[in-house]
Amino acid sequence: MTPFTVGIDIGGTSTKFGLADRSGHVFKQGNLPMSDFVEFQDFFDAMVDAIRKWMGSLSKDYQLAGIGVGAANGNYYHGTIENAVNLRWKGVLPLAKMFTKEFHVPCLVTNDANAAAVGEMVYGNAKGMKDFVIITLGTGLGSGFVCGGVLLNGHNGIAGELGHTSVNPNGRYCNCGKRGCLETYASATGIKRTVYKLLADHLEPSELRGISFEELNTKTISEAAQRGDVVAKEAFEYTGRVLGLKLSDTIVHTDPEAIFLFGGLAQAGPLIFDPTRYHMEKNLMPQFRGRVKLLPSGLENQVAPILGASSLVWDYLEKK
Amino acid sequence: MTPFTVGIDIGGTSTKFGLADRSGHVFKQGNLPMSDFVEFQDFFDAMVDAIRKWMGSLSKDYQLAGIGVGAANGNYYHGTIENAVNLRWKGVLPLAKMFTKEFHVPCLVTNDANAAAVGEMVYGNAKGMKDFVIITLGTGLGSGFVCGGVLLNGHNGIAGELGHTSVNPNGRYCNCGKRGCLETYASATGIKRTVYKLLADHLEPSELRGISFEELNTKTISEAAQRGDVVAKEAFEYTGRVLGLKLSDTIVHTDPEAIFLFGGLAQAGPLIFDPTRYHMEKNLMPQFRGRVKLLPSGLENQVAPILGASSLVWDYLEKK
Repeated sequence: MTPFTVGIDIGGTSTKFGLADRSGHVFKQGNLPMSDFVEFQDFFDAMVDAIRKWMGSLSKDYQLAGIGVGAANGNYYHGTIENAVNLRWKGVLPLAKMFTKEFHVPCLVTNDANAAAVGEMVYGNAKGMKDFVIITLGTGLGSGFVCGGVLLNGHNGIAGELGHTSVNPNGRYCNCGKRGCLETYASATGIKRTVYKLLADHLEPSELRGISFEELNTKTISEAAQRGDVVAKEAFEYTGRVLGLKLSDTIVHTDPEAIFLFGGLAQAGPLIFDPTRYHMEKNLMPQFRGRVKLLPSGLENQVAPILGASSLVWDYLEKK
Repeated sequence: MTPFTVGIDIGGTSTKFGLADRSGHVFKQGNLPMSDFVEFQDFFDAMVDAIRKWMGSLSKDYQLAGIGVGAANGNYYHGTIENAVNLRWKGVLPLAKMFTKEFHVPCLVTNDANAAAVGEMVYGNAKGMKDFVIITLGTGLGSGFVCGGVLLNGHNGIAGELGHTSVNPNGRYCNCGKRGCLETYASATGIKRTVYKLLADHLEPSELRGISFEELNTKTISEAAQRGDVVAKEAFEYTGRVLGLKLSDTIVHTDPEAIFLFGGLAQAGPLIFDPTRYHMEKNLMPQFRGRVKLLPSGLENQVAPILGASSLVWDYLEKK
């Protein structure tokens, strides 16, 4: 028998899902645009139909082991998505119960950054590690903690919201309603805001002066920095200074072996890793210095969200 | 049979130790002044002698279950005290190995704030809680985390150093070598520094103007505040503002059910709890607001350190 899992990553724009085996091979995958579905039940039925079709095409040797779901506001304890701001369906969506009723296998739900953390442990660069943190640098900043080999869920199932730690209580406005949250500085959106702040404050010429806020993205800033653009380089330096300082706080909370950076901004490589590492070390309590690795994720590709969600099942089954 | 534990709290000035049962009754206790011992072996032998003498006086019905030790720089993984800054004995002190050789029972070692966390769970106000944080406000600021019912130790066994998170990288000088660490603001020493800063900056009359830095203590400041002294009241408000802001960061890391404040400064009651709670809530990400209790420790008395150390043994045996 070859056991396999369904991994589902529910996002605001689209849902990526697929079938994966224990080695990390994704052998079926698909994509549902969220705009196609007015009702939650229709969306759910479309996923079930696709999964059944894929399963029908497999040999009898394959056996479904479980279903994993990563989604913003996913709650591990309840197996639900609760009041997600990025979905049109409000209230509580009882996904685990619904999937288990359809397929008679365990279904695990958690938020997307937690799924990335477990994915890193099961399939990625955190194999064999028991204490680490993953930071996902996308539109916002997500985070997941593994402590003593176990995903940290917290009392209400909402642990790991580092994106909303405070950099400056009078700082940039954040979607959460507060000001000065870490993700308003350290994220794909944060670095854009930093570029615009630098362009406003300084006189230096910069190729970024010709690009609108909407057009600007991490890749553009990254390429400009590699060509020596002063503003783009300073934007990375500033982002790393803020992120490094806050990571030094995180380290003295949980004493991790490593911190992984995941997502578009992390793909800028040394441009973001170097200043982050420098300011992290500089602000660390001396007894922690030189002990915590700052590493790229091992799952930087299109199937990473599917594998993150799949890994929840393997992690659950292997610890039972 | 009545099982009992030895609880030992090793401090810079003195070591408190005693025998305790599972209900939290400390039925023998003593105190060793650290200045009496030049060699570590002599100090260890004095503890062993006292414990043997106490045990000799007990009826046959009593049985030693284990030994717990709380100490600055105590390492749970190694059962050692490592390079403690507050002790005259440097290097690695292999306490667990030495005690187990003498008494043939398990010996657990951890830092004093972690021992306080387990003490709170076994004997105090955190009974039945699985996710909480304890903050010890003494000369410095210590902290211990319990996540999913388990003490958080971290990769190197040094998790929970919230005293050295950053309030202001250009702020007050800290013993650790950095500047602006939380404990330079929120601790018995921190509030003294705040009083002196306020006396320097402002013109208001204050009864604290007649007291030297060395004579000033939390109790004096607290009593002055209760009599309406403007500077003393503002010192508590400022301390709570800093502590509350940093606790809001801590909450989004581990999503605890409660945070306990322990130690002299916590005994100032509403003077410290009210501003801390206000600024903690104000700076919290909205989805966490109103969910985390800020509570006094249930172990505020002379035997608290002995019970904290003892609790390590019960926690260990009951989870085996």
